[in-house]
Amino acid sequence: MKSPLILITNDDGYQSKGIQSLINAVKGFGEIMIVAPDGPQSGMGHAITVNQSIRCETTNFHGSLVAYSCSGTPVDCIKMGIYLLNGRRPDIILSGINHGTNVSTNILYSGTMGAAVEGALEGIPSIGFSLTDSSENADFSYSEKVVSLITNKVLKNGIKKGTCLNVNIPNIDESNIKGIKVCRQGRAFWKDDFDERIDPSGKNYYWLTGSFSSKEADIDTDINYLENNFVTIVPTQFDMTCHNSISELKKWELE
Amino acid sequence: MKSPLILITNDDGYQSKGIQSLINAVKGFGEIMIVAPDGPQSGMGHAITVNQSIRCETTNFHGSLVAYSCSGTPVDCIKMGIYLLNGRRPDIILSGINHGTNVSTNILYSGTMGAAVEGALEGIPSIGFSLTDSSENADFSYSEKVVSLITNKVLKNGIKKGTCLNVNIPNIDESNIKGIKVCRQGRAFWKDDFDERIDPSGKNYYWLTGSFSSKEADIDTDINYLENNFVTIVPTQFDMTCHNSISELKKWELE
Repeated sequence: MKSPLILITNDDGYQSKGIQSLINAVKGFGEIMIVAPDGPQSGMGHAITVNQSIRCETTNFHGSLVAYSCSGTPVDCIKMGIYLLNGRRPDIILSGINHGTNVSTNILYSGTMGAAVEGALEGIPSIGFSLTDSSENADFSYSEKVVSLITNKVLKNGIKKGTCLNVNIPNIDESNIKGIKVCRQGRAFWKDDFDERIDPSGKNYYWLTGSFSSKEADIDTDINYLENNFVTIVPTQFDMTCHNSISELKKWELE
Repeated sequence: MKSPLILITNDDGYQSKGIQSLINAVKGFGEIMIVAPDGPQSGMGHAITVNQSIRCETTNFHGSLVAYSCSGTPVDCIKMGIYLLNGRRPDIILSGINHGTNVSTNILYSGTMGAAVEGALEGIPSIGFSLTDSSENADFSYSEKVVSLITNKVLKNGIKKGTCLNVNIPNIDESNIKGIKVCRQGRAFWKDDFDERIDPSGKNYYWLTGSFSSKEADIDTDINYLENNFVTIVPTQFDMTCHNSISELKKWELE
């Protein structure tokens, strides 16, 4: 069997520590191709660049590996990796390791997971990895083991077409990790706030802040397990239809 | 009962024709507040602005209505409309009318639908409207009737918590409209392409292009009904968990 082609991206930029850890974790698994943003793209969700053009340049940052830095979003990086930069279609897509958690509804805002969902749209097994430490110098040593373990399983078993995996890793000592849980996306939400500033010319501007919290009692969620020292895996799909609302809406007799 | 507060946004910018049609359609329905991007935000999906600050200014563009133009994404506009600009929580959120279709998996890339999904996260009934005509001077006269009809129904009946509606309207003469169909998101995908250009200094840059197509035989989808002259409504949820993959993944014995 031909060595698998592994397409790697992230949303913190090609120079971040997290992407280097991801590369370290899968170096022996196949041929690696990196297409990552040229700067921070956190919060970009599933955004693509349509009103501007995109730059894409080779970079030597990752040594002898094939690596490109791209001015676009993480999803743009996946599209370029598949359709522009390589004749060969990737066998697996890995995104991360994100500096910061992406549990629960944060999957919608996450550029890391946007890239993985784009992989699912392409029918390519894809995994987003995130560590609950948003600092630049986060310690990814245990995360690398998780990446190896799960990537290996996905290469071996595949995953259901139309899905990808959202993996979150607690930032605690390995000896305190309780295990790995497959579970659903928790229902937690942002109570947003805006930090108002005034620029030197007297005009207002704002920084988005807020607090994230869950009020649900069910414990079988990523947000709960992560808080309780488990690595979490949420199988994630791109079908956003609420299928069990269809019959209710049909009663409106709009048809 | 107090007159409902209607929060309106879009992804084509506060000066677009589509948002004015949306406003026209619901003018008599309650108090209107507009928070819309200060320029095009197509393709921004569920992106939020976290690495930059956001500007938000009042605008007289919509006459005597309360209206703000915002430098952020459509989702930022919703967050500002709820948490910054008004003491009162919106009763309903309307996004659009988009210049261009948002059927099928385009919901993931759509700023129009990003705003509606953000409304669903807030537990506020939300609807995204799109017309299959991406030209600046699209004719929204029939669309305005659809907006009135569906908004009225949602104000009266509510919709399931955690969901919003994705409404697409064919760009044909009203006499040829066959009806309104409630259905699921179709499985159609982009085959991407990159249009390569060379700048005056000899460096490459790219424009994202591509073709969108469906290969599924099932006709009960938004993409099929829209093509066959129906208005389509897809109930849309923010839970992206693939629930029926959980048991399969648990067999991997990672836990």
